[in-house]
Amino acid sequence: MKYTFITGASAGIGKALSYKFAEKGHNLIITARRVNELENIKKDIESKFKVKVIIKTADLAKEGAASKLYDDLKQYDTNILINNAGFGDFCMPWEINLDKANRMLNLHIKALTEFSLKFARDHAEEDATLINVSSVGGYYLFPIAVTYCATKFYVSSFTEGIAAAVKAEGKKLRAKVLAPGPTESEFLIAASKDSTVNGKDFFSDKNAFITAEQLAEYTYRLYESDKVVGIIDGEKKLVLRDPMFQIFTSDTKLT
Amino acid sequence: MKYTFITGASAGIGKALSYKFAEKGHNLIITARRVNELENIKKDIESKFKVKVIIKTADLAKEGAASKLYDDLKQYDTNILINNAGFGDFCMPWEINLDKANRMLNLHIKALTEFSLKFARDHAEEDATLINVSSVGGYYLFPIAVTYCATKFYVSSFTEGIAAAVKAEGKKLRAKVLAPGPTESEFLIAASKDSTVNGKDFFSDKNAFITAEQLAEYTYRLYESDKVVGIIDGEKKLVLRDPMFQIFTSDTKLT
Repeated sequence: MKYTFITGASAGIGKALSYKFAEKGHNLIITARRVNELENIKKDIESKFKVKVIIKTADLAKEGAASKLYDDLKQYDTNILINNAGFGDFCMPWEINLDKANRMLNLHIKALTEFSLKFARDHAEEDATLINVSSVGGYYLFPIAVTYCATKFYVSSFTEGIAAAVKAEGKKLRAKVLAPGPTESEFLIAASKDSTVNGKDFFSDKNAFITAEQLAEYTYRLYESDKVVGIIDGEKKLVLRDPMFQIFTSDTKLT
Repeated sequence: MKYTFITGASAGIGKALSYKFAEKGHNLIITARRVNELENIKKDIESKFKVKVIIKTADLAKEGAASKLYDDLKQYDTNILINNAGFGDFCMPWEINLDKANRMLNLHIKALTEFSLKFARDHAEEDATLINVSSVGGYYLFPIAVTYCATKFYVSSFTEGIAAAVKAEGKKLRAKVLAPGPTESEFLIAASKDSTVNGKDFFSDKNAFITAEQLAEYTYRLYESDKVVGIIDGEKKLVLRDPMFQIFTSDTKLT
């Protein structure tokens, strides 16, 4: 029995992804900190779709939590991993809450890397898919969210790099980057907490937002495509692309 | 009395930077794990140049070490911070040593971020300079060093982002990225340790290397310039540039 493992699944994009992948017939392992939300989602999904849902609570911003959870899941045959868990922070770099920044580095970078590298190690030769959720801010720098954007540049480049390595060595694993723009979720609330910049003002154009359900639909299209990057453009449409960063080859001319 | 704080100063680029900044009259705080090397460098520099050298041993790959060291240095007036400490790893992503990857994330990302954000907080309004050592691999992806490159994409984007934020808000702090190519140092030896790809074969063109002293000279030019990025090109020359990643503004069209 195969499973799709989704992090940050209790709300927003992660919750919508859980429903979308269940609707398409995938069994799920979903994780987040909030057990009640996960239990409600499990009950609702299992009543609506013919899939099995396993819930695991974890705070992946805590050192070592990702490693422990991955080992705990070894008993399941996971063929799709979606690293979605994350949060924003609207703040100028000299005003940032350092504890919040530290939790962000642990979650966006350390937990995602631990899961991705172990998944790549265990599934390089298999029909398996790694989808890492980055952001438009993982390709464009927003001065009001520098640390956030840098973590997402990490996610974009790390995942494009895995895709390039897979291609160079002819492995079967697929690695993909999802780069959402403004999406209706708890993101803006969390990003504005303890922050000195009002993100809601920055994202004042309500028409710029898409729903988490729409994004989940786009994500499934990225999953089914042969492209590496799915980025949401200024018209709120999904653009499926080849890697956006330059891969260094023997022909590359540094400028 | 003002100090230049340099990490990873016991060898290679960090050691050469220490000599160059001392030669230019800067007092130094230098840190690394190896106390004997630091003591020898201190003795030699203080005998050659009229500057004071303070040494601090620390393993910045250890959780919490950067925070502790920064607080320990509060008694000194540091006006230049050079985050240089780092190491490479030549390895396909599915073969990587996870402990090595974890230490790399702690050193390249967590320690550098801790130092940079606290330095920005303490010096945003001052004539102070932050120089973060990235890599050509922080702008171009090398499939044999994906995790390394992703950490360096983090460093490049984080530092360019701070420069953009400083510019947007009219702060005095200067933030700069140094992006070396192949440089004669212990880098290749460390990068090839526990690795499955022979980095020396990859960097087989000995003519592609510059000396650490040459790079230190380039770094000082970057320090004195009004540009944000100093990258070493395919001709081994320093190119001083504006930020290379796109800054998102209200005019930016996402594609």
